[in-house]
Amino acid sequence: MTSYKHKVQYYETDKMGIVHHSNYIRWMEEARVDFLEKISWSYDQLEKVGLVSPVLSLNIDYSHPTYFSDMVSIDVEILELKMSKMRVGYKMTNEEGEVVAKCESSHGFLLSSGRPAILKRDFPGLYEALLTHLSIEKESI
Amino acid sequence: MTSYKHKVQYYETDKMGIVHHSNYIRWMEEARVDFLEKISWSYDQLEKVGLVSPVLSLNIDYSHPTYFSDMVSIDVEILELKMSKMRVGYKMTNEEGEVVAKCESSHGFLLSSGRPAILKRDFPGLYEALLTHLSIEKESI
Amino acid sequence: MTSYKHKVQYYETDKMGIVHHSNYIRWMEEARVDFLEKISWSYDQLEKVGLVSPVLSLNIDYSHPTYFSDMVSIDVEILELKMSKMRVGYKMTNEEGEVVAKCESSHGFLLSSGRPAILKRDFPGLYEALLTHLSIEKESI
Amino acid sequence: MTSYKHKVQYYETDKMGIVHHSNYIRWMEEARVDFLEKISWSYDQLEKVGLVSPVLSLNIDYSHPTYFSDMVSIDVEILELKMSKMRVGYKMTNEEGEVVAKCESSHGFLLSSGRPAILKRDFPGLYEALLTHLSIEKESI
Repeated sequence: MTSYKHKVQYYETDKMGIVHHSNYIRWMEEARVDFLEKISWSYDQLEKVGLVSPVLSLNIDYSHPTYFSDMVSIDVEILELKMSKMRVGYKMTNEEGEVVAKCESSHGFLLSSGRPAILKRDFPGLYEALLTHLSIEKESI
Repeated sequence: MTSYKHKVQYYETDKMGIVHHSNYIRWMEEARVDFLEKISWSYDQLEKVGLVSPVLSLNIDYSHPTYFSDMVSIDVEILELKMSKMRVGYKMTNEEGEVVAKCESSHGFLLSSGRPAILKRDFPGLYEALLTHLSIEKESI
Repeated sequence: MTSYKHKVQYYETDKMGIVHHSNYIRWMEEARVDFLEKISWSYDQLEKVGLVSPVLSLNIDYSHPTYFSDMVSIDVEILELKMSKMRVGYKMTNEEGEVVAKCESSHGFLLSSGRPAILKRDFPGLYEALLTHLSIEKESI
Repeated sequence: MTSYKHKVQYYETDKMGIVHHSNYIRWMEEARVDFLEKISWSYDQLEKVGLVSPVLSLNIDYSHPTYFSDMVSIDVEILELKMSKMRVGYKMTNEEGEVVAKCESSHGFLLSSGRPAILKRDFPGLYEALLTHLSIEKESI
């Protein structure tokens, strides 16, 4: 799958002259939305089938600053796929190929009633699509 | 009415070392929400009576930069009150008393059906409350 | 010149289910930065030659809401080019071809010393490049 | 130490009708800046003594949504204080006393030269001030 690209905007910088660390969480969402579109399960599609997917937790490790007008590449993979939950990983890289951040987010799967969905049973198509992108390292665990 | 106070946050600065100009539009909203609460017509209250008030236009004149940890005072007044519309004015001042920006926003009044409300007829309480804060200069026109 | 494209992100929506009006000011900057790059006068280039260009004022007229995952096209033109100042116009259109917003921003031209630049004299290359994109309607005035 | 208070703004909501998860990272910064001011080590003061403190990582666990006009209380404590690094903890609570999020952030201490500072040796005053707010649970480890 091709990387998602985010071009750093001027308004994302702070007075240290680098990108403010709060923006990476938005890039994670941009890349996740793009990933879901690429596997044919856009947010609109999720809403249509009645699946709600709240963010449960997230984690960011910053390793290198980014700067105005940088083009950041973001690679997404599924780190873990559970009955009613998934964990998504993000690797963000600058144009020099340096990893600028590694991130994770966890997401629940709820039916529109608010009750946890059993992904495999209730949304087998989405389950299969996500499984295809499950990180190999984790799959063997 | 006491001024609304906004303390400038680090994440609001940009690489020029000053507040990025996009933040003032959010401060306008903060001050407008605060103003409506002070006249006992909070957003929750507006929703409850079925009044929808979209932003139609806005205008900002920047006259002086603001900096991280500045305390900005924002004074709100009603510049114009029409049948289904109002124009709100904002004067933003720093701690030295310098005007840092002057802003305006226009807002429609819609019934939940989507049709324009006649404010004076449909929501006389809100109409009276807004009238009290109508700018004197404009009232005489 | 091709339009700048902005894809609406989930984090740009608000509880009315539409894009929060504060985001358009950021899209203006995105489109302006892109415009300057296209005429070979990127922000980096402006910084290199010692030109500082603060935002003096802005104006947005909202005519139609935008929604999550909309692709918004933004066309930029120079509305006015003065000795030490320019006025930039933006037309934002959705995929159905509806104009969603019309915006303007004014920008000063300062030397790094803080004194106003005389654009034509101090930065003739930039002056010529901007002149090429001056709106025809305004040019005739 | 009194809790930092953040009033939820309209522009912080998203189309699910709740606060977008990206805002909590900004509230962490607001609370951290406020905490440092309360222990007399404001960002301005840190800059003055030549201490740079980049964010190294962060982690957020969301347990309960927050809504427009909620008043969120944020309690800050130092979870770990190392030679050139600290870990900060945040507990965010709504008006009903429910924990809405638990967060952590790690920060480096650098000299303006870019080299790691030895906090205890180079900035003993800050070291002592932070030590006072070290979480008791962790201190005993």
